[in-house]
Amino acid sequence: MIPRSLLFGRGLALSHAFSNQNASTVHQQLSMTAWNLRSSLRNIRTLSLMSLWPFNVKPRDFSLPNASWRPEMSKAYEYYNALCEIEGDEKRRLWRKLPSYNRVLKYTTGGVYLSKIIQSKARLFTRNIKEPGAAFEYVVFMNKQEKRCVCVFQAGHLLEGPPGHVHGGAVATMIDSVMGTLAGYMSGPVMTANLNINYRSPIPLGSVVLLHSALDRVEGRKFFVTCRVTSTDESKLHTEATALFVSVNVGHLFGTRF
Amino acid sequence: MIPRSLLFGRGLALSHAFSNQNASTVHQQLSMTAWNLRSSLRNIRTLSLMSLWPFNVKPRDFSLPNASWRPEMSKAYEYYNALCEIEGDEKRRLWRKLPSYNRVLKYTTGGVYLSKIIQSKARLFTRNIKEPGAAFEYVVFMNKQEKRCVCVFQAGHLLEGPPGHVHGGAVATMIDSVMGTLAGYMSGPVMTANLNINYRSPIPLGSVVLLHSALDRVEGRKFFVTCRVTSTDESKLHTEATALFVSVNVGHLFGTRF
Repeated sequence: MIPRSLLFGRGLALSHAFSNQNASTVHQQLSMTAWNLRSSLRNIRTLSLMSLWPFNVKPRDFSLPNASWRPEMSKAYEYYNALCEIEGDEKRRLWRKLPSYNRVLKYTTGGVYLSKIIQSKARLFTRNIKEPGAAFEYVVFMNKQEKRCVCVFQAGHLLEGPPGHVHGGAVATMIDSVMGTLAGYMSGPVMTANLNINYRSPIPLGSVVLLHSALDRVEGRKFFVTCRVTSTDESKLHTEATALFVSVNVGHLFGTRF
Repeated sequence: MIPRSLLFGRGLALSHAFSNQNASTVHQQLSMTAWNLRSSLRNIRTLSLMSLWPFNVKPRDFSLPNASWRPEMSKAYEYYNALCEIEGDEKRRLWRKLPSYNRVLKYTTGGVYLSKIIQSKARLFTRNIKEPGAAFEYVVFMNKQEKRCVCVFQAGHLLEGPPGHVHGGAVATMIDSVMGTLAGYMSGPVMTANLNINYRSPIPLGSVVLLHSALDRVEGRKFFVTCRVTSTDESKLHTEATALFVSVNVGHLFGTRF
């Protein structure tokens, strides 16, 4: 896991416990999207960390049920949520629900690209729409022992690509996020090096689908992950994908090694 | 090109001319994201077309300069826009700027997934944020003769993935959109069958990049397209991608052939 001193060092404090759930979410949010982060981070001149949320205020978990969820979404959520509660011993539980926030630990980039005011407004791409149900509604359930996870995803009306159907980029976004969450949960911070997607059948806007992601194999720092997007009854295959993630030293993210 | 009668038939009228520019934008917006659209469209029970915008109101072109554009974005825009105006004879112009709207021709899906009210709120994924500069700011310039296009893209603060950098899914979204626009411009409506992306270097949030897309080859209904995402001076490679698009009979989109 990520050393807490690295993640939240340098004068940064969080008021609530750094639980496993929080750690996995940080993994999710730190999931990188490029092979070579180090060279880019060389451009960072002024480095400071900002908190994920105001101190003493508990962050909102956006993966909890809300009024926009369709019955199919709620049903799938309840199914996997029940799996999380089968065993009382937390350490032996196979399934865990991961929380999901709308902010990422932020760097100032020395004013090169964004002002600090704009940076303070930065939001995670998949959680940047405030209206419930309008864009990405999703929740990830992790099974570390079996090296796999399932995401329940309801696609809102602001994700349109083809008429009445979800944009291929929105599908790619969910696939990258879910696969990166799995790889990050197994290894610590990762970057996406390759993403290869086969679109089999379009996803109608407003429908609920499952993303089944599994860790295929590990070769040194390389994590090979697969993903299948299906209907909730798994009878219909919408999309298939493979990805390569590379684990990175967390120091790279925080500017300690360049 | 798409037969006008199919696109805007069935009692639908548009107040402005159906120019080449409008045609290409429709191609862009109709760019499909799955191999098998027909099977999905079989679920459509009640079919009706809705206008892109209220009659007699000119739609807003979101690819025009606004106050959120950084000087680097404006400079790249002006460079390619000037290329569009080199020759006076419209038919011989090498470069064309494509307009970009925020709505797609919409189907009702028979109430299976979305109410008509929700459908009326549907927005193109890449144009679903109202605040200028907050998400995707982009403009596509097309060179049909050379079978390539260039997109100038400024990534806003709502596209965050890794701290301070653009989400891999947002990059994939732009790549899919630009490549699909090119394939659609050359062939008519297309669907994305495969998208293969190599992330080389992360894109800092707020920065401006170019997407260079080219039609590699055509095999029957298959269009093989490449894309490179670079810094505006083209000295730095951020992302490389290939994609396979498949042309579809426009009748499939409008339910006339099933």
